[in-house]
Amino acid sequence: MAPSLEEYERVVSNLQVTSAAKLGRTVGESDLALEESEQHGRVLGVFRCLIADLCEQFKGGHPGGAMSMAAIGVALWKYVMRYSPLKPSHFNRDRFVLSNGHTCLFQYTFMHLVGYKSMTLDQLKSYHSRKADSLCPGHPEIENEGIEVTTGPLGQGVANAVGLAMATKNLGATYNRPGHDLVNNMTWCMIGDACLQEGVALEAIQLAGHWRLNNLVIIYDNNQITCDGSVDVVCSEDINVKMKSCGWNVIDVFDGCSNVVGITRALIAARENLDMPTFVNVRTVIGVGSAVAGDAKAHGAAFGPAEVKNIKKGFGLDPDQHFYLPQDVKDFFGEIRSLGNSYQREWDAKINAYERAYPDLAREFTLRMQGKLTADWRALIPVKGDLPTTPTASRKSAGLICNQLATNLNHMMVGTADLTPSVNMSWKGHVDFQHPDLKTACGLTGDYSGRYIHYGIREHAMTSIANGLAAFNKGTFLPVTSTFFMFYIYAAAGVRMGALQGLQQIHIATHDSIGTGEDGPTHQPIALPALYRAMPNVLYIRPCDSEEVAGAFIAAFEATSTPSIISLSRQNLIQYPRYSSRDGVQHGAYVFIEEADANVTLIGVGSEMSFAVQTREVLSKHRIRARIVSFPCQRLFGIQTPAYRESVMQYSRNIPVVVIEAYAVNGWERYADAGFSMSSFGKSLPGDAAYEHFGFQGDSIAEKVRGLLERVDQNGLNSLRGSFQDLNGVMSIGPEAD
Amino acid sequence: MAPSLEEYERVVSNLQVTSAAKLGRTVGESDLALEESEQHGRVLGVFRCLIADLCEQFKGGHPGGAMSMAAIGVALWKYVMRYSPLKPSHFNRDRFVLSNGHTCLFQYTFMHLVGYKSMTLDQLKSYHSRKADSLCPGHPEIENEGIEVTTGPLGQGVANAVGLAMATKNLGATYNRPGHDLVNNMTWCMIGDACLQEGVALEAIQLAGHWRLNNLVIIYDNNQITCDGSVDVVCSEDINVKMKSCGWNVIDVFDGCSNVVGITRALIAARENLDMPTFVNVRTVIGVGSAVAGDAKAHGAAFGPAEVKNIKKGFGLDPDQHFYLPQDVKDFFGEIRSLGNSYQREWDAKINAYERAYPDLAREFTLRMQGKLTADWRALIPVKGDLPTTPTASRKSAGLICNQLATNLNHMMVGTADLTPSVNMSWKGHVDFQHPDLKTACGLTGDYSGRYIHYGIREHAMTSIANGLAAFNKGTFLPVTSTFFMFYIYAAAGVRMGALQGLQQIHIATHDSIGTGEDGPTHQPIALPALYRAMPNVLYIRPCDSEEVAGAFIAAFEATSTPSIISLSRQNLIQYPRYSSRDGVQHGAYVFIEEADANVTLIGVGSEMSFAVQTREVLSKHRIRARIVSFPCQRLFGIQTPAYRESVMQYSRNIPVVVIEAYAVNGWERYADAGFSMSSFGKSLPGDAAYEHFGFQGDSIAEKVRGLLERVDQNGLNSLRGSFQDLNGVMSIGPEAD
Repeated sequence: MAPSLEEYERVVSNLQVTSAAKLGRTVGESDLALEESEQHGRVLGVFRCLIADLCEQFKGGHPGGAMSMAAIGVALWKYVMRYSPLKPSHFNRDRFVLSNGHTCLFQYTFMHLVGYKSMTLDQLKSYHSRKADSLCPGHPEIENEGIEVTTGPLGQGVANAVGLAMATKNLGATYNRPGHDLVNNMTWCMIGDACLQEGVALEAIQLAGHWRLNNLVIIYDNNQITCDGSVDVVCSEDINVKMKSCGWNVIDVFDGCSNVVGITRALIAARENLDMPTFVNVRTVIGVGSAVAGDAKAHGAAFGPAEVKNIKKGFGLDPDQHFYLPQDVKDFFGEIRSLGNSYQREWDAKINAYERAYPDLAREFTLRMQGKLTADWRALIPVKGDLPTTPTASRKSAGLICNQLATNLNHMMVGTADLTPSVNMSWKGHVDFQHPDLKTACGLTGDYSGRYIHYGIREHAMTSIANGLAAFNKGTFLPVTSTFFMFYIYAAAGVRMGALQGLQQIHIATHDSIGTGEDGPTHQPIALPALYRAMPNVLYIRPCDSEEVAGAFIAAFEATSTPSIISLSRQNLIQYPRYSSRDGVQHGAYVFIEEADANVTLIGVGSEMSFAVQTREVLSKHRIRARIVSFPCQRLFGIQTPAYRESVMQYSRNIPVVVIEAYAVNGWERYADAGFSMSSFGKSLPGDAAYEHFGFQGDSIAEKVRGLLERVDQNGLNSLRGSFQDLNGVMSIGPEAD
Repeated sequence: MAPSLEEYERVVSNLQVTSAAKLGRTVGESDLALEESEQHGRVLGVFRCLIADLCEQFKGGHPGGAMSMAAIGVALWKYVMRYSPLKPSHFNRDRFVLSNGHTCLFQYTFMHLVGYKSMTLDQLKSYHSRKADSLCPGHPEIENEGIEVTTGPLGQGVANAVGLAMATKNLGATYNRPGHDLVNNMTWCMIGDACLQEGVALEAIQLAGHWRLNNLVIIYDNNQITCDGSVDVVCSEDINVKMKSCGWNVIDVFDGCSNVVGITRALIAARENLDMPTFVNVRTVIGVGSAVAGDAKAHGAAFGPAEVKNIKKGFGLDPDQHFYLPQDVKDFFGEIRSLGNSYQREWDAKINAYERAYPDLAREFTLRMQGKLTADWRALIPVKGDLPTTPTASRKSAGLICNQLATNLNHMMVGTADLTPSVNMSWKGHVDFQHPDLKTACGLTGDYSGRYIHYGIREHAMTSIANGLAAFNKGTFLPVTSTFFMFYIYAAAGVRMGALQGLQQIHIATHDSIGTGEDGPTHQPIALPALYRAMPNVLYIRPCDSEEVAGAFIAAFEATSTPSIISLSRQNLIQYPRYSSRDGVQHGAYVFIEEADANVTLIGVGSEMSFAVQTREVLSKHRIRARIVSFPCQRLFGIQTPAYRESVMQYSRNIPVVVIEAYAVNGWERYADAGFSMSSFGKSLPGDAAYEHFGFQGDSIAEKVRGLLERVDQNGLNSLRGSFQDLNGVMSIGPEAD
């Protein structure tokens, strides 16, 4: 019979860990260490040989880290983590993040051992195979049962883990009540040496220390080896002192390859640490048990059949037996499923009690768990008549709309990379997400129930932490991030990981294009839109006025498995209530101003729409009729029907299409024959002067369009095929490119 | 008469700083502090009021930091830095980097005060004006005299400064000889609170500590204010402890707003520190002297006319006098020009002596100073006949070629973000760039003369440090960076800053496209090429075989003001010696296989060229004739003549053009009517299986091309206008997009 949950917890938390068979019997610690070593040693040996076999079968993969971390894995999955293999989605489960994702076999194999149903031995054997439906890809992927976040790009997992831990803190502060500790799970983040070198992790580490996230534990597989060899080649820092300086508790484990008890003790101490996150520095040996133990050669290649035999011999196993998994090792993890069920049942009981004590809160909490919103977001978006009609910066329009949403929707976690005064994302009465003691320490406000996040000047960590928030439980949080659009280039890897994982988020990107002005070319994005328009599963939306900003938020809310970037102006924009349409935004593009016998179609985009309208006016003086298409989102337009697309673009009219946008034109060639765009970096000038400097004025553009039309008159529209027209400069190289 | 250089240096380095008039008279330290305070106080007051005026005239800019840093500026430009205002390019000058670039008025104003010829008062007044030729843009720009690097995006300057300091160390270790200390300049890097939060700076700080760059000083304008208010809102770390843990010397200055002597003492101590970089933590008050002193409001806005008057009153100046710069303040900096001349003359004498003692080395050093190469790079690139003919990964081809270049060209500084075994950039006999003592400490090799750089897993710092190396003196260094192409997304902000500054560099981006295989979608770039193809002044080159790799290096070497990204395969690529052409690469695209009566033009690109060739073969079985264009670089093609472009694309044939590439197709629409490409993220499968999974096989592609040709037969080629064909899937959103 499996032990009771209480027994198990008590025994484990007293660090008197023992085998399943002996659970419930209190043993002395030293007694235990002695007793345990043999069985642990056997489990570790079998595990490590299995890893070697799994990499050997297709001659590839990453065996070294998975082998070095085996004892950490036993401590985590057998003794420390609270989770349920039969219900991986248990809401209050501990979250595990493998930031050194290339060691994924570590996680997959423990998932198999503890009884995740989908993780069969056959699945394990599909690692590095040609099976397209393998649950064991080269890095953990969130789509697969039991995987919390997709990792691989190094450092990301650390930031994800910070987001996951924040999610717990925020839900706890919002819903827990005395005697009703509903949400209190831990986040365990496994890292390798590399994660401590990546800037995104270093940023996130600062924030976790600042926020005193005591439910977060980083476990450092300190094997001192990266691809280039010893970490000494690239790092001389004292990591423990550094972590302490960042507000982390540090626990050392020295014999990390075999000391399961010591690791367990450290992890439990970390869990019980009261006021800061914990960094458990575990010394291990990469590829332990192999001839290349402690060498970079153990990192990313199979050992070869002869060496795999040697490894097995070393661990006392039959060198000729493959994928060996004896009954006693299975039995060692035998009680985990039932323990998981117990966790789940205990928590179900908590929820029942909570429903009786706090029915309203419980109702709301249940909605949040189900990923349903607690208010009707559509009703919160102002109608057209309530929007500004005088020139307004779209960053202001976005503030008007988003603040209303954030005030009323408590799943929104809105943050900024230190641009609160510029991005307009803070709402009246908002509470900062902060450790509650910060109030007394610094006289600042905020607590863990806060939903406004000051990320500091850490754009990359911001988006990657937002991924963790969104991944906590789909729909329970809607992270909003914000900074100048240009600085989403720092954050690009985080935005991409959100898109890859299908996580809904809204990235508020203000000060777009050269209109941002005096800050100059360093702050003026030219090429960045090309990245986000090409990136799978991202909506890059550039609204032209307040009505289209409303449309952008609608699109972003509708896209529940997709991050959206809403691209906004610093400068005031003319409002076009007669023409602009939130519904039009949902289709990506729509007819903005129609013209019966048009000579040309102008595509107006976002902050540069006024130039399309001006150009149309200038052209009309020359008796040239221009129709205007507003084109806020290429991807939304791309998924429309051919009939809708033709109804907007009207290629059948056989008139040229010209796009006007102060970005690199790349990608618009799909829709336009010519573009008035940017072929160089920008310029430090006041916004309007910067536009003027680069020819963005109705007069100049109209003149170029007239030239184009003359050419078409002479040579026919077909002459434009394969010779897309750069109306505002040509490609060149060198810094003076213009 | 100006003091002699020796006198000046001796007095200053004894910390017995005094006014120019009194130089040469030895004074006691306390005596000095007392005597000095009055004159320093007056200079600081005049400086701060000038800053307030300069921001007020156009109601904008960043006054707060420039004002808080005034005393630091006096210490730097008057007492500590060695430079020559009349010869800003003096080779051995101290380098100054303003990482908090928004405080640029700080630098501009001191440059004016010490006598940079171009930095007139009128130029200062053009800050935030509509003058397109202003030398005072909103952030410092490298094109302008006296500016070492373009800064603004926070954190970049720290990494640049590390690169600049490495450049000094490397040149010194290579050319200095006993008694001939040719290159020994310092690098001074000014930072604000924000730079200590950005990951790129945190990465670079680790490296500087590891390399023990004792010629690097970071001066921290510790005003504890960012846009969101107190730094307490976002940071609780102990920065001094943290810097020490990273191997930095730390010096505190507490009264940083007025204690010029104290700051000078700290900076000189930093310069004389023997074995590590120094972090000078200077406590200041943002906007000191204004009503919003110590408040975020002082950061990024003019004070308003009334407050500017108050500020002037507070500093004892006439509130109605604008841009006040009295003679005594000018005189205070009066000797700097002649001191600068003395530095220059002294160094010229050093060079003369060196030429006599080491004529060969001096010849080489002179070439390096002039940005000329010390060997004929063209002769170092293997001829076609010496290149592999059997299938070879292009990362291997690149290694063959680049190693030969790096062996012989000592301006090449080749580095990797911990992927030495994968990127093939280390050459036989290379020396690692390391502090020489590392040998004894860790048994590792290397010294400062080394030109192989282990950057660790720090992609962003790698590219931004490379910018510093390249900016040291144009052409003296050619930095080469390397990692997987996917991880240039971490480094994108650094690559961009290199392009913006016109710095030649070569970024070796291996494991491109889905062909990288098992590592899966996290490691397979889909959208990233769209960024780099759109980015001004970047050559993104994707060679298809070894011959084209040779062509890529030729193009990269020719582009002396442009960074190049050479995009390479992990997997073996078929070699096409009959068709491929290094000269063709120089034109961006060229005819690969011609066909007299072709039905279709296929564009083959880089690692996916074989699919174009396969497709052509399959089509030929259906009596469809396909010509093939190899298209390694869009930008190089874009700058060709229309006649050349037509000779390659042959649109006059009126046959469709289809591009085949395992990336998002965005941007190819300029040249092609249809594309067989990727519309989703990739997949963890062996490289060939990943290609197969997404339909990249001659059969599948040929079938789609045949369908396209049928459609064109029926509806005419013109039917394709405005309806670019995605032959391999359509746009969609959501994580399952495919």
